Amino acid sequence: MENARLAQKGELKLLKKVRERFKACSDDKRVIVGIGDDAAVIAPADKKIVVTTDMMNEGVHFDLNYTSAIQLGFKLISVNISDIMSMGCVPKFIFLDLGFTSEADEELFDGIYDGIEKAIGFYGGDLLGGDLCSSRSDTILVATVIGEGDSVVYRKGAAPGDRIYVTSSTGDSGCGLKILKMLDDTSREMVRKQPVFAGPDEDKGKELRLLTPDGPVRLDWDKGIKLIMRQLTPVARDSKDIAPLATAMLDISDGLFLDLGRMCDESGVGAVLYEERIPMSQELMDVCQRLGMDPFQLAVSGGEDYELLFAARSFPLDIYNSSHEIKVSCIGEITDGERAVIDRAGRRSPLKAAGYEHFGS
Amino acid sequence: MENARLAQKGELKLLKKVRERFKACSDDKRVIVGIGDDAAVIAPADKKIVVTTDMMNEGVHFDLNYTSAIQLGFKLISVNISDIMSMGCVPKFIFLDLGFTSEADEELFDGIYDGIEKAIGFYGGDLLGGDLCSSRSDTILVATVIGEGDSVVYRKGAAPGDRIYVTSSTGDSGCGLKILKMLDDTSREMVRKQPVFAGPDEDKGKELRLLTPDGPVRLDWDKGIKLIMRQLTPVARDSKDIAPLATAMLDISDGLFLDLGRMCDESGVGAVLYEERIPMSQELMDVCQRLGMDPFQLAVSGGEDYELLFAARSFPLDIYNSSHEIKVSCIGEITDGERAVIDRAGRRSPLKAAGYEHFGS
Repeated sequence: MENARLAQKGELKLLKKVRERFKACSDDKRVIVGIGDDAAVIAPADKKIVVTTDMMNEGVHFDLNYTSAIQLGFKLISVNISDIMSMGCVPKFIFLDLGFTSEADEELFDGIYDGIEKAIGFYGGDLLGGDLCSSRSDTILVATVIGEGDSVVYRKGAAPGDRIYVTSSTGDSGCGLKILKMLDDTSREMVRKQPVFAGPDEDKGKELRLLTPDGPVRLDWDKGIKLIMRQLTPVARDSKDIAPLATAMLDISDGLFLDLGRMCDESGVGAVLYEERIPMSQELMDVCQRLGMDPFQLAVSGGEDYELLFAARSFPLDIYNSSHEIKVSCIGEITDGERAVIDRAGRRSPLKAAGYEHFGS
Repeated sequence: MENARLAQKGELKLLKKVRERFKACSDDKRVIVGIGDDAAVIAPADKKIVVTTDMMNEGVHFDLNYTSAIQLGFKLISVNISDIMSMGCVPKFIFLDLGFTSEADEELFDGIYDGIEKAIGFYGGDLLGGDLCSSRSDTILVATVIGEGDSVVYRKGAAPGDRIYVTSSTGDSGCGLKILKMLDDTSREMVRKQPVFAGPDEDKGKELRLLTPDGPVRLDWDKGIKLIMRQLTPVARDSKDIAPLATAMLDISDGLFLDLGRMCDESGVGAVLYEERIPMSQELMDVCQRLGMDPFQLAVSGGEDYELLFAARSFPLDIYNSSHEIKVSCIGEITDGERAVIDRAGRRSPLKAAGYEHFGS
């Protein structure tokens, strides 16, 4: 297979390729001009506009030895769309700023667009433009997503007496990152070959080989890969049936405790969480036991969960969970007091947030 | 003066600082939420929405030895707003993705925001959000600007018989870049100290010292600095009184010839340009003569001019130019034939575009 370096292709040819590829995707009548003019042009609608943007930098947010280009492209869109979903809105228009080094090849370039296309196919929305540049040292990925909604759910709005809910489970992604960093070369390559939506069966019988500080460890493939893919290809949660009932909502990107703190800050309220109610996957618990890690620490401050954290006066858990694949759990209440967590023994302690911080000392 | 490295401050403190700074700027009643939630929220309007985004990477688009942080922040906004203006629209909402290395200090951080604030003060618009990240090796700057307009002007729409117009003059910025690269250390530092809107008088009597392949050259400060500042702090041209008459328009970012080619491609037309009509500043001609450079080559393919290039059935040049500081020139006509340029001797030759291309071979 020919795999030319981008330097041999030239920007204009690459742009043309992208334009051809995404031109056919749009069936949104409101898109007047997509890729190809100085700016994209969109007809007005009588809905609120929500805008978010996220940057992913090589060596900081990702390492191309640990993720495939397609996984990375999918994640770039997911993390942005998660921010739109967490406002209770629908993603509509997507813009990309991509920087590639002169060493980058078409496999990387095409792979990232494959992942982006996969994500857009899954979530909806149209790629309408962006910028394609050289970068001196690192691959740089930025996406901006414009969403729309009639009613928007903010971080503020939670009131004492509301209950606190979270989708699915937290900690998997943080644990997945820890596993990823310990994989041997063979396992790492197997992970990089995983498609965005990996079926659990196709690699039956395989195992993940880890190089831990205490020596080599073999991990059940199914369990390990589930956690790893939560890190490499997180899926933004659909908020359609949650938003109408939520008084406040955000997505958990920096850890449950830290992001709950943000909701409390913006809403001017306190909160109490119950340790035993914080949902953790069986895979997280099994793998943590195998590797001697604390699953609860990962669940409350692992980061990159991209689960929805919301408050609601009441939420019909049974009805919702019987009709949705992604379940919701009630983990605590909004109060007018301090932020606290109550452990399994009933002991109360202050909620201390410890999430990931850029430029942290 | 304390100039802490960003690593000592932490992302949350830095974000808080940005939020405080730009919170007061907005008096746009349509901004429901700016910085501080998962996404910005804007109330709908019955206008078309235009969106553009541009990336500027250290070592590719800028060199911090040659530009100050404030100049750079201003340019980041200018180049994006130029794309909005060239659609005949008004810039409204601005989003930033900034990546700083662990070596970056507050002087760089604050300087970039100073320049951004200066630009927003000049052009209008509100900073509503973005992302602030670590970057492994380089400073990475991305801005996304959302504009609005009732009628939008595209690259397509030019028809045979239309005349071709350009604002101000081209080539200054390309020449400015060439000068910049030859400055000695002292002159370079003087340039980095120039405010975004430098008065021509305050450095009267100074000179720029260049190290050329043929030895040292001294350049008149006023002339040289004007060209350099067109490169470091370009000013997007206001299209308010042009757009209603333009059949097609774009901003010249990659060279007059290349960008005219884009208009022709999109409009499905040809064009003829007259060499003698292409506006060149006195400074460009004087400096090129002094340095043995070809001003015409810079004017037609220098790049980063950020002048408006537009076609119009007719345009009241005299009236427009008598009431606007930035003048407009007619440089040719749209045809249904080939793209050609006619030189001062009346000889016709094919118009060959040679602008800057990323990943160019």
